[in-house]
Amino acid sequence: MVPVSPLPQQPVAVFDSGVGGLTVLHELLVSLPTEDYLYLGDTARLPYGDRTQQELRDFSVEIADHLLEAGAKLLVVACNSASAAALDTIEAHLEARRVQVDVIGVISPATQLAVAGSRSGRIGLLATPATIASGAYARAVRAADRHVQLESVACPGLASIIEAGSSFDERGRVRGYCAPLRAAQVDQVILGCTHYPLIAPMLQRIVGRGVTLVTSGAGVARSVERALAARELLNPRSQEGEYRFQCTGDVELFQALGTRFLQMPLGEVAHVELAAAVTA
Amino acid sequence: MVPVSPLPQQPVAVFDSGVGGLTVLHELLVSLPTEDYLYLGDTARLPYGDRTQQELRDFSVEIADHLLEAGAKLLVVACNSASAAALDTIEAHLEARRVQVDVIGVISPATQLAVAGSRSGRIGLLATPATIASGAYARAVRAADRHVQLESVACPGLASIIEAGSSFDERGRVRGYCAPLRAAQVDQVILGCTHYPLIAPMLQRIVGRGVTLVTSGAGVARSVERALAARELLNPRSQEGEYRFQCTGDVELFQALGTRFLQMPLGEVAHVELAAAVTA
Repeated sequence: MVPVSPLPQQPVAVFDSGVGGLTVLHELLVSLPTEDYLYLGDTARLPYGDRTQQELRDFSVEIADHLLEAGAKLLVVACNSASAAALDTIEAHLEARRVQVDVIGVISPATQLAVAGSRSGRIGLLATPATIASGAYARAVRAADRHVQLESVACPGLASIIEAGSSFDERGRVRGYCAPLRAAQVDQVILGCTHYPLIAPMLQRIVGRGVTLVTSGAGVARSVERALAARELLNPRSQEGEYRFQCTGDVELFQALGTRFLQMPLGEVAHVELAAAVTA
Repeated sequence: MVPVSPLPQQPVAVFDSGVGGLTVLHELLVSLPTEDYLYLGDTARLPYGDRTQQELRDFSVEIADHLLEAGAKLLVVACNSASAAALDTIEAHLEARRVQVDVIGVISPATQLAVAGSRSGRIGLLATPATIASGAYARAVRAADRHVQLESVACPGLASIIEAGSSFDERGRVRGYCAPLRAAQVDQVILGCTHYPLIAPMLQRIVGRGVTLVTSGAGVARSVERALAARELLNPRSQEGEYRFQCTGDVELFQALGTRFLQMPLGEVAHVELAAAVTA
């Protein structure tokens, strides 16, 4: 088998269990506006936070194959649960297929930004219980700097609250999640779930001016830019690229929610059937 | 007459023609969460952009008196049109009344942030036609550094588009407003209308990663903090302060729009009658 190398005019592919990864796509659009993008939300099987590690690996490999088939030149795993469980698996799978496509998750870029930005050496993490339980952020922080302390707070239900648009009514709960971060006097807080940037203003008011909120998206955008540049895969065109959206579940729901998450109308959303999704 | 000095436990007052100034209040809540706030939206007389300079001075003095009556220890003019037209007038009025209360507008703090942050010496301004016509930003930029070039773009109708929530449909128009800024290769863009921060994500995608969007709010928050500290008027309490909202027009409309602008429910909004507003 000859290694397969992608071309600069192929799209960057981004996937998540739902619409949350659109906050990552937003940052990519800011940094790399001339690229084409293909976004897939695996809405038929969300939330990923409730899935086993093996399920997440199977889903991720299946989606990776689908996106490569659609011509992806780089894969962004814009989901914390899938990044924690399946990043190595996807990379091994691509290597076995001899496909020279980089895979970028959300955990390492966000961790590096937070660690690099911290003066106190104390950083905080807000994430789903599954992401915290995976230990992926704790490992990433240790790998970046073993002298940095990580204060992790599991926020059960917060992603659903944000998706339902009821975060205003749940301020007490959000404040409760932030209390351990304030007590630990962290100076960086990683938003370890792609839904959380939507309530960044509320979180900033709770944690105060001296604390930097670190979203995955900005770090991912830097990593994607470096990865494409290293392989000479940056799209050389000067006008803006095109965006395509796919989901495995309800198309209209995805359109409505997605417009709010991306702050931009999505246009047409294509429904795709993934083999395992049908039986999941 | 003995000079009247306010006390630390009195509220900070913020006023605007409508809900736009709530984006400034948000930044104050981030920086100074233990203060009490009183916000007034002069919604019966908006938009201020269509008013004469004399009207804006009359309205501003009247509102200043009302807010002092309500116990304000500092006044924030969270409106670009009123800041441009009436800041000096309000200060002279307070001095004549021998009231030792600082007045902080939005133009100088935002200009200083943009000038200080610019490496290229080229900064951009998006604002209402009235604000641009006042020349206030051009004067503030010259005062800060006469070697800095200012590229000003009047954006007729943009505040209304944002208030109506239809900015998604008007992307072409927004892109057109940004075209001169891109051509001038500015590295800072002042959002010279308090409505514009609501479409910051869209603007950031259009101007790109290398351009910093400067909102009035962050600069105002710094100025307020310094002013209160200088007069030893920072509220010494440790728990969060309280917020009160008043408007001169429709209370329910203000509540609905305001919740979106502040990303927080406003709670009760009081209707107030200002003498001149009744006949305006």
